[in-house]
Amino acid sequence: MAITFDLLKTDGRARRGRVHTPHGSIETPIFMPVGTAGAIKGLTPRDLGEAGAQICLANTYHLHLTPGEDVVGRVGGVHRFMAWDKPILTDSGGFQVFSLPKKAFTEEGVRFKWQVDGREVFLSPEISMEIQQTLGADIAMAFDECVPFPCTWKQAHDGVDRTLRWLDRCMKAHTREDQALFGIVQGSTFDDLRIRSAAETIQRDLPGYAIGGVSVGEGHELMMRAVDAAEPLLPKHKPRYLMGVGYPNDIVEAIGRGIDMFDCVLPTRLARSGIVFTRKGAYRVTHKKYRKDRYPLDTDCACYACANFSRLYVHHLLRNKEILGTMLMTTHNIAFYMRLVAQARQAIEEGRYEAFRVEFLASYLGGEETIDGEDARGED
Amino acid sequence: MAITFDLLKTDGRARRGRVHTPHGSIETPIFMPVGTAGAIKGLTPRDLGEAGAQICLANTYHLHLTPGEDVVGRVGGVHRFMAWDKPILTDSGGFQVFSLPKKAFTEEGVRFKWQVDGREVFLSPEISMEIQQTLGADIAMAFDECVPFPCTWKQAHDGVDRTLRWLDRCMKAHTREDQALFGIVQGSTFDDLRIRSAAETIQRDLPGYAIGGVSVGEGHELMMRAVDAAEPLLPKHKPRYLMGVGYPNDIVEAIGRGIDMFDCVLPTRLARSGIVFTRKGAYRVTHKKYRKDRYPLDTDCACYACANFSRLYVHHLLRNKEILGTMLMTTHNIAFYMRLVAQARQAIEEGRYEAFRVEFLASYLGGEETIDGEDARGED
Repeated sequence: MAITFDLLKTDGRARRGRVHTPHGSIETPIFMPVGTAGAIKGLTPRDLGEAGAQICLANTYHLHLTPGEDVVGRVGGVHRFMAWDKPILTDSGGFQVFSLPKKAFTEEGVRFKWQVDGREVFLSPEISMEIQQTLGADIAMAFDECVPFPCTWKQAHDGVDRTLRWLDRCMKAHTREDQALFGIVQGSTFDDLRIRSAAETIQRDLPGYAIGGVSVGEGHELMMRAVDAAEPLLPKHKPRYLMGVGYPNDIVEAIGRGIDMFDCVLPTRLARSGIVFTRKGAYRVTHKKYRKDRYPLDTDCACYACANFSRLYVHHLLRNKEILGTMLMTTHNIAFYMRLVAQARQAIEEGRYEAFRVEFLASYLGGEETIDGEDARGED
Repeated sequence: MAITFDLLKTDGRARRGRVHTPHGSIETPIFMPVGTAGAIKGLTPRDLGEAGAQICLANTYHLHLTPGEDVVGRVGGVHRFMAWDKPILTDSGGFQVFSLPKKAFTEEGVRFKWQVDGREVFLSPEISMEIQQTLGADIAMAFDECVPFPCTWKQAHDGVDRTLRWLDRCMKAHTREDQALFGIVQGSTFDDLRIRSAAETIQRDLPGYAIGGVSVGEGHELMMRAVDAAEPLLPKHKPRYLMGVGYPNDIVEAIGRGIDMFDCVLPTRLARSGIVFTRKGAYRVTHKKYRKDRYPLDTDCACYACANFSRLYVHHLLRNKEILGTMLMTTHNIAFYMRLVAQARQAIEEGRYEAFRVEFLASYLGGEETIDGEDARGED
């Protein structure tokens, strides 16, 4: 097995674990920053490691289109390409192609024109596996059908079935022994479909399982409901990954429901528009009231940005579109997310996750300026 | 005196020195990266220090307009604002206001409308000194008149006279004892005016002198001619600063003519358009021939960018407008410039500057792809 999972402790449904990969181990619960095109926007790999990241994502769709997996392969794969020698996970491209407005979609796969150069591209379970094996991440994701939200029961049902048929094709095509393939549970917001999808997926005995088809606009309640439907079926001794999630409160609630892994564009994407995550909620440092504010971005944070710079400086940088503004904001937001999951791990170890959850949510959601409704979907 | 200068060694006209400032010493000859709005585009202060920078620039014009020197002053000045605890030099704003297309220009000062918000702004020798003293850099520059290139002898003559009158007003207005005020020699491309400007300026007995009004489109030959006219008059035991210069070959030639300090936007500005400086000339890594190139940006360089990343990766980042592309390019170009002046210092110490100069120019100018004709003027 390319990866193995140790379940170290449970606290209610919350789990403290460790994923072993060919590029080192990951302490779970973990948040995975998103490096869509093989780069985190505004951070070097060194900055990313210093912010506490243990694993990051890269997008198969984007790297296939540019520069092409052949180019990434020339330097030996995505780790050397990005100069990140810790674990990497690649998505399958499924989410991206199903988000495209114009696509020709058959049982075989999905055909579309790439907007940048008009080139015709075809992705299928086999092609996604081939690309992901060339990229060489530690964890590859199955090529699935992600139905839109909202959708009918029939649409969601057909998506579950197709995702299962495609999973079998992915497993047949996936031969790289130093890379793990995770299956993805679909089923939209329908409990019966989530349950059936989970039950069928785990019969494939894969090294890890994801819950997909969330963070597509359904909101916190329906997201948690999807987790509650699928999670009880997932095997205890395999990691569980909730795809594309989310806000800090989503993550804290989902950890409390037994999820181990998360990825989301929010901390990086919102960094660029000036939104600072803190324990007391998120706020916009570009607001005029921070023009003369001498405090650090987050008074509870010791990251490089908070240890050295004031809100008035970051406000100035972002208002003037200075690249350093994005760099400092991203440094802080990633550090905040990484500290959040570190605190969650510690709370589980100490058997006080429920108290941590209640306290965090009271503080975070009680913040006057908490941001929500931002688009958490897709690539960064 | 806020700053003092030790002349450690001479080798022909080249000089090896040390400037002592309230924020530490600077080994000369030195290159000073430009942080126009109080930030180097694409580098944290930590990155900047690691690339070898000992002192950086910030622009009075930009910081006055946004966020305003009052805001910078709220955190104690430009060092804390930028989180750069090494020496800083601020220009006077003179170069920027004389570059504006629309301005009302009198003996008192220069009035203009700021393009961003239409606000009317007035700068004068006294106001420039007030702003620079609030910013609190180690070195402030006199508010001078920089005539355009080309210009008539009469224009250049009047500019020299006005710059001298304004220098006297700057000296009267400048009272901050932990900040040095440098005078600026003008005179455009006219030897007699350069000589008169230098002779009159040094009578003011300032802690350092700059040669200004160069790097405005006159080209390498006329730039060196301006240095050759003014430099022999400048006192041996004060630092000499050639403003806005330049290409690596400009710097190597000017060090050979007795210049100690340089600043220029080229390494940072050109980084963002994909131009990589190397000992064998500069080249564009965005060219399609680097799409699959596994080598580092510069095979002679050990900077963070060259030690970890390939040309094909940086090519990919820049083609996709990824921020990390700018960050890595800027890291390398600044490291290249800082290594260039470090090599110059060592050559002077070892009494072989002339051999270094000849060898460097043969290698740099002999490169097939050497870039020139790029705009080196102004702010970054």
